[in-house]
Amino acid sequence: VELTSLFDDLARAGQEPATKVLEYTIAPASDDIAEQLNLPIGSEVLTVRRLRSSGGQPLALMTNHLPAALAPDRPELEQAGLYQALRSRGVHIRLARQRIGAKAADRDEARLLNEKPKAPLLTMNRTAFDDSGRIVEYGSHVYRAARYYFETTLVDR
Amino acid sequence: VELTSLFDDLARAGQEPATKVLEYTIAPASDDIAEQLNLPIGSEVLTVRRLRSSGGQPLALMTNHLPAALAPDRPELEQAGLYQALRSRGVHIRLARQRIGAKAADRDEARLLNEKPKAPLLTMNRTAFDDSGRIVEYGSHVYRAARYYFETTLVDR
Repeated sequence: VELTSLFDDLARAGQEPATKVLEYTIAPASDDIAEQLNLPIGSEVLTVRRLRSSGGQPLALMTNHLPAALAPDRPELEQAGLYQALRSRGVHIRLARQRIGAKAADRDEARLLNEKPKAPLLTMNRTAFDDSGRIVEYGSHVYRAARYYFETTLVDR
Repeated sequence: VELTSLFDDLARAGQEPATKVLEYTIAPASDDIAEQLNLPIGSEVLTVRRLRSSGGQPLALMTNHLPAALAPDRPELEQAGLYQALRSRGVHIRLARQRIGAKAADRDEARLLNEKPKAPLLTMNRTAFDDSGRIVEYGSHVYRAARYYFETTLVDR
């Protein structure tokens, strides 16, 4: 299984990804986020919420938390994907743990994604680690079910 | 990524999987299924539809198509998982391609899974290959979103 980001995948497929940054906040981590990032409570953390579109239609709503020291600039995140921005800062993501599920859209998600409330969404929660084993980001994404799926190949060794 | 089946995973987690076979039909393949299985149109194919429960609650609705020559018996499929039944016939599944998405439950799915119509479901379509590269099964599964997710670990080599 290859490690790619949504932005990279869309760009490669000629799908013209576009990103709107809805929230960009650097603040002390909540207990929950500190635990997800394996940081001391109160560490400075970037929370970024982005709306990703392709072909002019909304596709995904992405919330990501990163240690503030790794935070890309806001304009950088309008232009490129998060992983691309991290790579340009010398961060190499080595491993990611993903949990893929489904949920019904809440009002806010429905409005932003141009779906009806309670429409089915595909969800992905991800923790990414760099070469040293440090947690680089924790992300929580929702995708419109009619517009996205994950493909994986499993091999029995 | 390790290749396991839902039945194996549940059994390992002490979740007491139970299976009800809703349909078991051996018949000539439709054009679509023949193509999915890479068989000549009209080849004999087993179509099996099963309801999987754990802890006494419905969890997944699974439709699978297999070349008739590999078909496990109906009672076998009430007792064990499909992959376990195939293994006991000497079939080794080497590789599987999965597509994971989400959808809204239709009336039939909602009734069988004890969900409301249009409830979000997690979907998985899978094509499995044996050591010789032959397609062994094509499956189309839906899972209750509140009860199931997929976990994968991605490594950048």
